[in-house]
Amino acid sequence: MKATIQSIGVIHTPYTSTGEIPRQGVLEPVTEGRVVLKDEYKEGLEGLNTFSHAVLIFYFHQAREERLKGTPPWADKERGVFAIRGPHRPNRLGLSVVKIHKITPDGFVFSGVDMLDGTPLIDIKPYVNMLDPLKEGGEGFQGRH
Amino acid sequence: MKATIQSIGVIHTPYTSTGEIPRQGVLEPVTEGRVVLKDEYKEGLEGLNTFSHAVLIFYFHQAREERLKGTPPWADKERGVFAIRGPHRPNRLGLSVVKIHKITPDGFVFSGVDMLDGTPLIDIKPYVNMLDPLKEGGEGFQGRH
Repeated sequence: MKATIQSIGVIHTPYTSTGEIPRQGVLEPVTEGRVVLKDEYKEGLEGLNTFSHAVLIFYFHQAREERLKGTPPWADKERGVFAIRGPHRPNRLGLSVVKIHKITPDGFVFSGVDMLDGTPLIDIKPYVNMLDPLKEGGEGFQGRH
Repeated sequence: MKATIQSIGVIHTPYTSTGEIPRQGVLEPVTEGRVVLKDEYKEGLEGLNTFSHAVLIFYFHQAREERLKGTPPWADKERGVFAIRGPHRPNRLGLSVVKIHKITPDGFVFSGVDMLDGTPLIDIKPYVNMLDPLKEGGEGFQGRH
């Protein structure tokens, strides 16, 4: 199966090279990033303000190759690409959970920044506690279908 | 930005129509699904056995259209597509956290099934507690880059 994906917007962050990016964005609660949607997708945001967090699916646009094995900085030997989260992977999709600070007319401001400035955004999903949705409260957990 | 994605394998589940799928797979701990990777991606699994859960990114192959608004079954009015998790969305990517039961030579058996049989698999990522990774323990949380 093959399909074409296209960006729904762009993610602006303070990071212009991979070396600047914290290992885990959620540990950097102060740094802010900004999601800016293309005009045609703005209305898709309606209702996201009821969630505290969102899942961003984005494209690792600076990944130069796909590898099936990699050695993350914290490990002393290679792991399979599906056991690590790095950018050099089949289909080059990245995933981050971010905290929504402020909804704007064309997107939102968030913390939990761990992607490069200019990263193409592919999808946004409301974040709910995925392992234990009933404890999450609120209505979001029922929105799967 | 446009890119081509292709499936790395397929997800086998007991569900052959959307009406059979539970609203939230994690509430169905008994039902099992199976990830079967294409031969060329099998080695990417190495090390996934150290994680209890995985994130599956898959393709909503039966979604017939993309909508910017939708009314989920639990709501009484329309929401923006980025505030719901349904299949009729730009780029048609789905996301589920599943529990790994058993690693097999070509994939793994899991619970938390909420996708159709034959769903194209796009990526697998190790699951860590995304909001509070330091409490998760284990080594996985550091593997972001």
